[in-house]
Amino acid sequence: MSRRLLIVGGVAGGATAAARARRLDEQAEIIMFERGRDVSFANCGLPYHVGGEISSRRALLVQTKVGLTRRFNLDIRTRTEVTRIDREKKLVHARDLESGREYTEHYDDLLLSPGAAPFVPPVPGVDHSAVHTLRNMGDMDGIKRAVDAGAKSAVVVGAGFIGLEMAENLRRRGLAVAVVELLPQVMPPLDAEVAASLHQEIVKHGVHLRLGTRMTAIEDSDGRPVVCLESGDKLDADLVILAVGVRPESDLARDAGLEVAASGAIVVDEYLRTSDPHIYAVGDAIEVRDPILGGTARIPLAGPANRQGRIAIDTMFGRPTPYRGAQGTSVVRVFGLTAAATGASEKVLKRRGVEYLKVYVHRDHHVGYFPGAQRMMLKLMFTPGDGRILGAQIVGGDGVDKRIDVLATAIHAGLPVTELEALELSYAPQYGAAKDPVNIAGYVAANMLRGDEEFVYAEELGDGQLTNWTILDVRDAAEFAAGRILGAVLVPLSELRERWQEIPTDKPIAVYCGVGQRSYYATRVLRHHGLKPRNIAGGLCTYQLVHAPQPTVRPWAPREAAAEEAVCGNAGLAGGGCVESAGGVCCSEDTLPDCSTG
Amino acid sequence: MSRRLLIVGGVAGGATAAARARRLDEQAEIIMFERGRDVSFANCGLPYHVGGEISSRRALLVQTKVGLTRRFNLDIRTRTEVTRIDREKKLVHARDLESGREYTEHYDDLLLSPGAAPFVPPVPGVDHSAVHTLRNMGDMDGIKRAVDAGAKSAVVVGAGFIGLEMAENLRRRGLAVAVVELLPQVMPPLDAEVAASLHQEIVKHGVHLRLGTRMTAIEDSDGRPVVCLESGDKLDADLVILAVGVRPESDLARDAGLEVAASGAIVVDEYLRTSDPHIYAVGDAIEVRDPILGGTARIPLAGPANRQGRIAIDTMFGRPTPYRGAQGTSVVRVFGLTAAATGASEKVLKRRGVEYLKVYVHRDHHVGYFPGAQRMMLKLMFTPGDGRILGAQIVGGDGVDKRIDVLATAIHAGLPVTELEALELSYAPQYGAAKDPVNIAGYVAANMLRGDEEFVYAEELGDGQLTNWTILDVRDAAEFAAGRILGAVLVPLSELRERWQEIPTDKPIAVYCGVGQRSYYATRVLRHHGLKPRNIAGGLCTYQLVHAPQPTVRPWAPREAAAEEAVCGNAGLAGGGCVESAGGVCCSEDTLPDCSTG
Repeated sequence: MSRRLLIVGGVAGGATAAARARRLDEQAEIIMFERGRDVSFANCGLPYHVGGEISSRRALLVQTKVGLTRRFNLDIRTRTEVTRIDREKKLVHARDLESGREYTEHYDDLLLSPGAAPFVPPVPGVDHSAVHTLRNMGDMDGIKRAVDAGAKSAVVVGAGFIGLEMAENLRRRGLAVAVVELLPQVMPPLDAEVAASLHQEIVKHGVHLRLGTRMTAIEDSDGRPVVCLESGDKLDADLVILAVGVRPESDLARDAGLEVAASGAIVVDEYLRTSDPHIYAVGDAIEVRDPILGGTARIPLAGPANRQGRIAIDTMFGRPTPYRGAQGTSVVRVFGLTAAATGASEKVLKRRGVEYLKVYVHRDHHVGYFPGAQRMMLKLMFTPGDGRILGAQIVGGDGVDKRIDVLATAIHAGLPVTELEALELSYAPQYGAAKDPVNIAGYVAANMLRGDEEFVYAEELGDGQLTNWTILDVRDAAEFAAGRILGAVLVPLSELRERWQEIPTDKPIAVYCGVGQRSYYATRVLRHHGLKPRNIAGGLCTYQLVHAPQPTVRPWAPREAAAEEAVCGNAGLAGGGCVESAGGVCCSEDTLPDCSTG
Repeated sequence: MSRRLLIVGGVAGGATAAARARRLDEQAEIIMFERGRDVSFANCGLPYHVGGEISSRRALLVQTKVGLTRRFNLDIRTRTEVTRIDREKKLVHARDLESGREYTEHYDDLLLSPGAAPFVPPVPGVDHSAVHTLRNMGDMDGIKRAVDAGAKSAVVVGAGFIGLEMAENLRRRGLAVAVVELLPQVMPPLDAEVAASLHQEIVKHGVHLRLGTRMTAIEDSDGRPVVCLESGDKLDADLVILAVGVRPESDLARDAGLEVAASGAIVVDEYLRTSDPHIYAVGDAIEVRDPILGGTARIPLAGPANRQGRIAIDTMFGRPTPYRGAQGTSVVRVFGLTAAATGASEKVLKRRGVEYLKVYVHRDHHVGYFPGAQRMMLKLMFTPGDGRILGAQIVGGDGVDKRIDVLATAIHAGLPVTELEALELSYAPQYGAAKDPVNIAGYVAANMLRGDEEFVYAEELGDGQLTNWTILDVRDAAEFAAGRILGAVLVPLSELRERWQEIPTDKPIAVYCGVGQRSYYATRVLRHHGLKPRNIAGGLCTYQLVHAPQPTVRPWAPREAAAEEAVCGNAGLAGGGCVESAGGVCCSEDTLPDCSTG
């Protein structure tokens, strides 16, 4: 008798699982229930169809129900909700949302891939008809209809992946856009100083960015929604997008008596089995193992969902495969910048009480002598003893995704930072440097581990007038004149060997340059003379981001801003004239040529 | 008393070593000898200044002699040749090439970083005044002068990195360009079928490509050089570039009685010490350990040279650090394509008699539903037992360098292909896919290791009329009509479950589709019915490259071609209108959406 597999949810994890199951068992009966109209649609592409960068709606439906059915011999039931699981009898209760018909289906194994729903904060007026969330094609259609109908302004609540992607795409359509975020930074998974460089970019693109403020209500003004902030400010707009995070869809599991965590996520074992051995769960609805720090985490990302779908089926069909967890590798484009992360953030390390060291590197994505080099900042966290990599974050232009993938691979392999020194990465002038930013991060981290370099962090320093440090700037006079840490003393590196005795020694010495390279050389010279200088990690670039003021925001002027930024829409976002290069994030550094020295 | 370090050669390895030595020892006396005029110049950028993409010559001199001297307190002697080493007395004999003055300097330690010289094949007429090689700024100036003076045509002899980069840059300047290569393919480090997709690209850009032919002489015709080929053909041009490889500059070492290998490279131990414990050697002049296959190899690349310079100094200054060898990670842009490699090639594996398996993957660099997706072909080689990765090669458009770096990291970490399945790489629509090409390569390779998928390779097959195989095409009828393996039988995947009995079973069955994915699904169906089909690895895409005829080349018409291709120069090479996307390399495949299934 053929085996009967039921799958609840037909997007990332569910559809992968169905296809995998068919490959492993040609005879199995596979029924996939999906509440929505579409299976296997490209949910990561939704904001870009609103913005027009993905012009064809059809492109988002890469696989149709018919195509999938034929290829994998599936029984796909869209617009069908699974309302109840009878674990005793191994039945699910389903309801056809079109006809209202209710029925049951028996299973041998059940896979839950219900996903997560946009969280809707319980504030008055949140049910206003112009308030949208974005999860599926229908939600996208609703937003796009409003924009096509001539919406001139939007307030996006929440500055995570979806919030920022929506903000970018609505700007692309010429709308005035406000972004409201409860935290004092965008992109909550990133550390504050990394997110800080995104703030400038967002504001530069005409977004009215409101950080560290709560939405208290949505009022109505002649049919238009007005977002009320804790500060008393009110932002009116033609539409509101709520993107404040997602909530695991675990009601079905909970009602069936399956174990659900305090976070609301379904609890699974290392084989992705729920507390019922015949029921597996995958995707945004579950908690997964944190392979770096231990414990569990919610990682609602497409890559892990896919992998889990495959692995759950492998186990189910007699090839037990443990899922080792998700390290949370992610990337997002924010106008002209790219931000990416893998592993633990510094804030998580602090929260978890994990001992760590950190370094910063600012480097071009390829050699500076080849045109088009774009600067990135790379932050690397690792253990003090053995230098095991704990996490990395990068923000910049081109090539950010490459470096985060290399670091994600290094973390996966358990490499220590000392191995990053030795990685042999590809180099030609268009693609990188003989010493890649990842190698450089390895050098700096290894210097730290070996005691060749001691750092002081910008957050431990005020300026030179309010600190217990003598702050030494070793750049040249022109750079010093153009901008410096207040109260810093200037002795250029090239004069340091003759002039080191000028440096006041009544306080400990903190040395900096643009990005931390020349200051490292300087500390080596000073150490030789018996001083104990510290290098300001990441130089002036990182210092400026750590001490960045909240970005200046122009008054909320829905119609005005829209007109101004139409230029941007025309030029195109991908490298258009109004996208400043990543080099703009940060200050310059006359690094050594990559074909040569270091 | 301070230690005395002498360095011979001031470019990649030498300059890195000098800077590193200063950081480790503020007091050491460091003298660096360089025969040329410039130290630490960007040798990888030379072709691009000829072509104009790097417009400023100064940009190539990222560090000046004065700057380096000041920063690192070095004694740099350019235009100075070291003519002899007296190991007994620990002296080098130097000659100032400007004044002719000869003198000696004592050393405590000596580092040799002499590099490698362009090999000049010993054919009659090779000393023609219009024949150039490219190693340093002066060579570049000579070529650029000839082009600026109105050269209309060039013959490039040798189709490796420098040969192809020069061909591209000379085309960019509007010259008619012929490339002559002894081997039947360009880029000798690549395997033939990977190089084959470059052939189309090169020919498309108007290059007269002559593969598998030897230059026998260079004649003179009214002052212009004429390259004579074995075939009897003669290619006249305004200039000739010889780029047929490099020869280690080991005469100094050999004359000093240091051990030199049969290859001409200086022999060093794992600490980069020559046979004299006070003399180290780094860079293009040495042989290094092959970390993958064992034994030694010559890897004349900038990244390894830099790393070796650092490591030799570390050992010399009391921090013994073994150099673990170079896996030969490299990348090159060839007009609109990128080709990259890491680890062993298939031809090297064959030559060394190493057992291996291989798979091919054809995937877009980011999800297909986001505009601008560019196809790449990824070839992965690994051991049959434990799946250890031996090597990878990729050719395509954007994102090739990223995947080779991830694979280079995986090789460095000793990961097996089964771990490539589990790598958690970054994904957003602009950057990749929920299942990255590297993950897919891992899936396919792991399928093979686990026996879920059995391959037959294009080189083992003729067409369906000349083979012992029944060749089954499982694409749809329109695809089949547009191009297929001769004699193939068509049964689309979507009809296979009903029609599998139509397939002739008198011969073994080889199944294919565009890239090998649908055919894999098909083999799963057929296996269920007791058949033992094999999947044609890499589908029709790889088949076509393996069986690619030599590209059709128009007659050598120096002036004519130059005129025609001016369009290309105007449009700009980087994504201009005449650069066909990498998608053109290969056929299409309706892959599953990456947000969803697989």
